[in-house]
Amino acid sequence: MIRVGIYGATGYAGYELLRILVRHPQAEIAFLASESHAGCQYSQVYPCPYEHALVSPEKTPLDRVDVVFLCTPHGASAVLGQRVLEAGAKCIDLSADFRLHDAAVYKQWYGEHPAPHLLDRAVYGLTEVYREQVARADLVANPGCYPTGPLLALYPILREGLLTERKIIIDAKSGVSGAGAKPSEKTHFVNVHDNFSAYNVGRSHRHLPEMEQELASFAQGPVRLVFVPHLLPVSRGILSTIYVSLDPTKAESDILSLWADAYAASPFVHVLRRGESATLAHAVNTNLCALSVLPAGVAGEFIIVTALDNLIKGASGQAVQNMNVMYGLDETMGLI
Amino acid sequence: MIRVGIYGATGYAGYELLRILVRHPQAEIAFLASESHAGCQYSQVYPCPYEHALVSPEKTPLDRVDVVFLCTPHGASAVLGQRVLEAGAKCIDLSADFRLHDAAVYKQWYGEHPAPHLLDRAVYGLTEVYREQVARADLVANPGCYPTGPLLALYPILREGLLTERKIIIDAKSGVSGAGAKPSEKTHFVNVHDNFSAYNVGRSHRHLPEMEQELASFAQGPVRLVFVPHLLPVSRGILSTIYVSLDPTKAESDILSLWADAYAASPFVHVLRRGESATLAHAVNTNLCALSVLPAGVAGEFIIVTALDNLIKGASGQAVQNMNVMYGLDETMGLI
Amino acid sequence: MIRVGIYGATGYAGYELLRILVRHPQAEIAFLASESHAGCQYSQVYPCPYEHALVSPEKTPLDRVDVVFLCTPHGASAVLGQRVLEAGAKCIDLSADFRLHDAAVYKQWYGEHPAPHLLDRAVYGLTEVYREQVARADLVANPGCYPTGPLLALYPILREGLLTERKIIIDAKSGVSGAGAKPSEKTHFVNVHDNFSAYNVGRSHRHLPEMEQELASFAQGPVRLVFVPHLLPVSRGILSTIYVSLDPTKAESDILSLWADAYAASPFVHVLRRGESATLAHAVNTNLCALSVLPAGVAGEFIIVTALDNLIKGASGQAVQNMNVMYGLDETMGLI
Amino acid sequence: MIRVGIYGATGYAGYELLRILVRHPQAEIAFLASESHAGCQYSQVYPCPYEHALVSPEKTPLDRVDVVFLCTPHGASAVLGQRVLEAGAKCIDLSADFRLHDAAVYKQWYGEHPAPHLLDRAVYGLTEVYREQVARADLVANPGCYPTGPLLALYPILREGLLTERKIIIDAKSGVSGAGAKPSEKTHFVNVHDNFSAYNVGRSHRHLPEMEQELASFAQGPVRLVFVPHLLPVSRGILSTIYVSLDPTKAESDILSLWADAYAASPFVHVLRRGESATLAHAVNTNLCALSVLPAGVAGEFIIVTALDNLIKGASGQAVQNMNVMYGLDETMGLI
Repeated sequence: MIRVGIYGATGYAGYELLRILVRHPQAEIAFLASESHAGCQYSQVYPCPYEHALVSPEKTPLDRVDVVFLCTPHGASAVLGQRVLEAGAKCIDLSADFRLHDAAVYKQWYGEHPAPHLLDRAVYGLTEVYREQVARADLVANPGCYPTGPLLALYPILREGLLTERKIIIDAKSGVSGAGAKPSEKTHFVNVHDNFSAYNVGRSHRHLPEMEQELASFAQGPVRLVFVPHLLPVSRGILSTIYVSLDPTKAESDILSLWADAYAASPFVHVLRRGESATLAHAVNTNLCALSVLPAGVAGEFIIVTALDNLIKGASGQAVQNMNVMYGLDETMGLI
Repeated sequence: MIRVGIYGATGYAGYELLRILVRHPQAEIAFLASESHAGCQYSQVYPCPYEHALVSPEKTPLDRVDVVFLCTPHGASAVLGQRVLEAGAKCIDLSADFRLHDAAVYKQWYGEHPAPHLLDRAVYGLTEVYREQVARADLVANPGCYPTGPLLALYPILREGLLTERKIIIDAKSGVSGAGAKPSEKTHFVNVHDNFSAYNVGRSHRHLPEMEQELASFAQGPVRLVFVPHLLPVSRGILSTIYVSLDPTKAESDILSLWADAYAASPFVHVLRRGESATLAHAVNTNLCALSVLPAGVAGEFIIVTALDNLIKGASGQAVQNMNVMYGLDETMGLI
Repeated sequence: MIRVGIYGATGYAGYELLRILVRHPQAEIAFLASESHAGCQYSQVYPCPYEHALVSPEKTPLDRVDVVFLCTPHGASAVLGQRVLEAGAKCIDLSADFRLHDAAVYKQWYGEHPAPHLLDRAVYGLTEVYREQVARADLVANPGCYPTGPLLALYPILREGLLTERKIIIDAKSGVSGAGAKPSEKTHFVNVHDNFSAYNVGRSHRHLPEMEQELASFAQGPVRLVFVPHLLPVSRGILSTIYVSLDPTKAESDILSLWADAYAASPFVHVLRRGESATLAHAVNTNLCALSVLPAGVAGEFIIVTALDNLIKGASGQAVQNMNVMYGLDETMGLI
Repeated sequence: MIRVGIYGATGYAGYELLRILVRHPQAEIAFLASESHAGCQYSQVYPCPYEHALVSPEKTPLDRVDVVFLCTPHGASAVLGQRVLEAGAKCIDLSADFRLHDAAVYKQWYGEHPAPHLLDRAVYGLTEVYREQVARADLVANPGCYPTGPLLALYPILREGLLTERKIIIDAKSGVSGAGAKPSEKTHFVNVHDNFSAYNVGRSHRHLPEMEQELASFAQGPVRLVFVPHLLPVSRGILSTIYVSLDPTKAESDILSLWADAYAASPFVHVLRRGESATLAHAVNTNLCALSVLPAGVAGEFIIVTALDNLIKGASGQAVQNMNVMYGLDETMGLI
């Protein structure tokens, strides 16, 4: 059994992680740490039957765990990650702290990095692309919820050099759990329900540099990204509509077959039949990323749609998928 | 033109009141007061085109208004109401401060009353029942959102003495705007959406004494009330399902005709055809209280369903309806 | 491995059943039958990755299955159930066909029973109450979605004879999936969303005789039931608010401890701590029935609230729970 | 008083039109025609208090009306429109029948045009752009719900020739009422709620030729349009996110001021302050088109967001706005 600890266990990602791990046949919960709810039982925090105790982050037995998930905010994660690695455990961080390879870029978006020496050690945990590196890693930076879908969508065409304009438009729509459990104007029911809005328009969303880093790596050169996130009146799920201009000399049917080929061995990328379109319903409450590609009806223009559950494939599910890979287990264990 | 001032203009009731008054052919806005947003324009507070200035409650020209609406919390309303009356204006209070006739009962639920000498002067503004008193009043206590529907439902049978058991069960379901504009755990989208729950079970909701007072007055004697409010995943609307045991010797068809008779001259009580059942859709975004009565299929047992918009008929709409009555205008002016 | 067949596999209960069975370590799908979608793959019917073939009900290998779930409409189920039993397989019926012991009552609500001789053989599959009979049964009548919660709520007090008035009021609220997958006025998004309504008021809902049968059995005598179902703007979940008058001489704390005692060995009844109130969020997407009891604040009056997922504990989950019991497996297998 | 007739009065556009006209001080309902509900009262069709009679389309007194609104499907509208004009009344058609100037383009998308000789007579009723032509028209083709927002967004930049790439991407999201009142898989609550999806991807939505016609007219030359509509889990509202590449030599602040200037005299285009972003909440239940423009953070790239209520500004509200213009009334009459 893999002994698992969780910091930040009472945020949405922590709750989802616990729900997955409770069913995972090879995992056992070693500790659940929470600053805000230390001393409570889990069932007092969320409407669930879990009677696990929540402990203070200061009182966590790091010597008795194999792997630790960090569901803590950026900044805090880097500090905890260092402590976990020093204690000899593996670490899967769900924050942004180890996603960017370049401490200068990190600084621009988040401030001074608390442990820049660990950046080289971290593997970006987009499992389908970096599976081999994840298998050998002891520090995994779990991807952000927004980047996961578009990166899986764009990887097969960028590595083939099929992009003609180096501009990509990502029109993304996320459910409200992406904004976290803390009450705010933005998450007040009356403000969200029956509403729909764009936010952080124009290079201001923190998931942008992470996408730019990975897309440049796939394309072996920088890509101009226009990214507009929107807030959907649903609790869970992200659907991204991605607009690309591809080499018009390439046969349409060759293009349309790229994704099924690229992800044939990836159980959690559900490439839809031709003509179908990915929807939130394909993905919510699962670890799947549903993916569809359709010609725009204008030469060379294609529309890729991805859908995933921001708390599962976009956070805790992908984190457990990475844990499975790190421990040589079946990638789908506990996730189906 | 009636010059109107509003205190607490940036809560939900204030917003709704402004939307109604902007269209009201006989009203003009004299001031909109807000503690939290003084100095802003209204369009900076809500997604609307209203460019009215918000002023501090301290800087309100009470000498240049005819009527003032108080959308302020209980406690604050009593103090402001006194000031408004002293300035010679009429006052319509949407808080609980002037609803209870008995300062001792008020104290039990809200604390010491700030202006108990005004309680006798206040008229309970359930327009359909107290229209004549409202017409002569200068201080109107606008009913609570929960009480309005059940009181309109029960008035025709209680005044006829048709209740056999003196116990009434009110199972009420309200939309989230009833909880106010302030963000909280209770109003977080993820906690409400796809959820449904009872709350304040067992004599703990503050609208209980108000209902008991009025029901006892209708029935000329106390009534045992079991009241369970629930939170619906909608922004607006209250539907109440009311269970009563009536005199089994009375013919069913006589019973079923009581409401249409009682409210024949009340344009905002929409008594449905026999066999129909009131729904939120009958009432939301209108000043109507939709009302239906159906036999339970068990001798003497009846089920009354009322539906209204908690912010309109349950608050601002009824307040304007009262203003219309106070000024001798058509009761429906600005409200259709 | 238990070889499982499903008739009516493309309704909501069938879909849910498939999702549960795909994860069940002791079950394997032998066939999925559908009249409307025979010849399709499952992933063409619902937005899911299941590539199972759907076969015509006429072409089902009944000789190669151990147990069959009937997700077919009443009438059809009785006919299929007879065929399944004759083929030597066990049968779990999710329709109403085997729930009522009395063919005359069945006739009154559904028409002539197609196989009345099987009624005695069927066990009513409310697992927590009839676990021992289910264990020995080869024909299980899975309870209706509405009855499950109230029956679990009322069993502990009715068998103790604590009800003073023999009248029970059940104010129930269900999500839309309870109305089935067929498009209709009632299930049109615009008619349901932001709406809330009572329906089938007054002895007209078909789950009424099933509840009356069981309540009379628990109470050893008839009970007057007032049951009002409502339609909630959510996809899944039923919350029932149940009003009972209990023996006022019994100590409140003794009453409040009845449920935890009755269900101590029942892993899927989640009796909440005192003071907590069951919500849909406690139950949706799980096989749990959450249950809370609160005093009404009026002597002898209590309010019991139950919440469950109508498609899981109210249908497919309870069906698998029964299968587990019938095969001597851990009752929770595949359900957590 | 303007005597108004409505064909197709029981669709969503007809219902909304009635709600507006009931409040309009210069309009009176002459007839409401409905094929499906002739003989009913309006309150039997929708949960409303309107006791107007619905008549068969065959029995409509065209000699006693001044203006007729057609809320009928394409094809039917052209036939009725001809009849209305022959009877000497004015006609405002909410279908697509008179929107396209070219009968050949109409044929490609809808089939043979029933009355092509009327196409020249019709004015495209985008009030803000064609106000003067509308004022003189007796046949107005009310714009589609999707085109209205993007056309208002693009008019100020296309007429100035600021588009560098002649490609425009419109990522549009609509509420479910856009799909009409008829129940279908697409509008089943369970399929829409908590879901989000793209549909009609790739030159297949019928609003495309209408947009291309108008954009080409604004730009004095053809424009490549990539248009992807999505279905939002809300009843009302369309938000369009529009991606354009503009002349990079033009100062950003000059660009950002174009819209406020273009629509200074248009009361129903609500151009937001700089930095704000249009949301559905700005527009739903009003006749406003809210509009915001934000730089994408990449040179020359801009993001325009428009929001409107598909049933009001996108249908019935704009139709009444056109009626007001046709009769020389205040453009806002009955619409605020």
